[in-house]
Amino acid sequence: MYKLVLIRHGESTWNQENRFTGWVDVDLTEKGATEARQAGRLLAEAGFAFDIAYTSVLKRAIRTLWHVQDEMDLMWIPVVHSWRLNERHYGALAGLNKAETAKKYGDEQVLVWRRSYDTPPPALDPDDERTSFADPRYARVPREQLPLTECLKDTVARVMPLWNESIAPALKSGKRLVIAAHGNSIRALVKYLDDIPDSEIVGLNIPNGIPLVYELDANLKPLKHYYLGDADAIAQAQAAVANQGKAK
Amino acid sequence: MYKLVLIRHGESTWNQENRFTGWVDVDLTEKGATEARQAGRLLAEAGFAFDIAYTSVLKRAIRTLWHVQDEMDLMWIPVVHSWRLNERHYGALAGLNKAETAKKYGDEQVLVWRRSYDTPPPALDPDDERTSFADPRYARVPREQLPLTECLKDTVARVMPLWNESIAPALKSGKRLVIAAHGNSIRALVKYLDDIPDSEIVGLNIPNGIPLVYELDANLKPLKHYYLGDADAIAQAQAAVANQGKAK
Repeated sequence: MYKLVLIRHGESTWNQENRFTGWVDVDLTEKGATEARQAGRLLAEAGFAFDIAYTSVLKRAIRTLWHVQDEMDLMWIPVVHSWRLNERHYGALAGLNKAETAKKYGDEQVLVWRRSYDTPPPALDPDDERTSFADPRYARVPREQLPLTECLKDTVARVMPLWNESIAPALKSGKRLVIAAHGNSIRALVKYLDDIPDSEIVGLNIPNGIPLVYELDANLKPLKHYYLGDADAIAQAQAAVANQGKAK
Repeated sequence: MYKLVLIRHGESTWNQENRFTGWVDVDLTEKGATEARQAGRLLAEAGFAFDIAYTSVLKRAIRTLWHVQDEMDLMWIPVVHSWRLNERHYGALAGLNKAETAKKYGDEQVLVWRRSYDTPPPALDPDDERTSFADPRYARVPREQLPLTECLKDTVARVMPLWNESIAPALKSGKRLVIAAHGNSIRALVKYLDDIPDSEIVGLNIPNGIPLVYELDANLKPLKHYYLGDADAIAQAQAAVANQGKAK
């Protein structure tokens, strides 16, 4: 049996400001750092250890991982940074306040952009300064693979090659593995692992900074999964995510 | 022309307590963290950027690198953790106070252990709890390669395969590279790069937390090297290291 732990980054400055973030490289808040350290302590107390870690190229996920490594005394393990684990690209919505966007376009349209499986938000113009083309962290990614917007379906499509080519083989070789990533890149993995239909995955909320443990069989099919920690705190964190897109 | 930056970790808790550390995994002090952040700011201000980083498997070097990456906004670059960049193994002296050891054995004997090129301190007993045999970070290192003590010559011998097989090829492929490591693993690299005789390398003091920049030609031979930062601060840091082994 294999174990895999998924952790969505702690609260970011734009979670706090309720803005669409996507590939914008915002940092954790102090609360987010505390959540990340708490996740590390929970994992250490529950006896977890890891041989390798995966994360995105965005600092809110990397810093979450650093806090987890620090608390677990595992700063020395190898870490794979992949753009394929980045948050969903939010296209032209990146930087906009979620509540303001909801006021302007209506809750329903925003919910479609946030939670439709296959309707992406409006794309960035290729000349927009918010594109990733000139960012050195994507220098080795072919330009045609760098998104200008993404629906969740697109995110799933770019996460899966990393799963198939790197993560799944590492798990099968016996490596104990943690992935520190983002709401939608984790949704992509959960959709695949639990074979969740397109229509249902959009309603699944991944709380910030709470370790999600999968126990997998020899074929990497889930035997069970659970969140680590206090049940009330988990429910509260999930509800907080679900409410982010509303106009209030 | 290639550039290579070497950084010795900031002050550690055992630097502060003036104890022989070696492979014991002690953390940075608050001063050490400040030194590391300052090194990162200096590098950023001087226009440096890196494509890849190398460090040891010891947290005082890794945390120094993290601070540098953080200040340079380079948290996403790949990092290679290698035991070959660890500090010199101090054998049975690990954990002992330098001044007390000097009182007991005399300044001269301690200076021989600290600074002789080829006389190692007394070895650890293989049954000593301070050996590395059961530590998971060394699980993939053949047991016969794990030291029970080291002289600087031994440290050079285990650093060089990493240089030859990984660091030098990375430099030649055009990668801009930073190495966050320890006094003696950096001495090993400096000895090789500048072809310093055995008798002279022991007198060379590497200050904590100050970037040492090498400019290398196409064959990786040094054109010049320099420390980054304020000249007085550098001289002070070097003198502090030189005085550590004295009885006082």
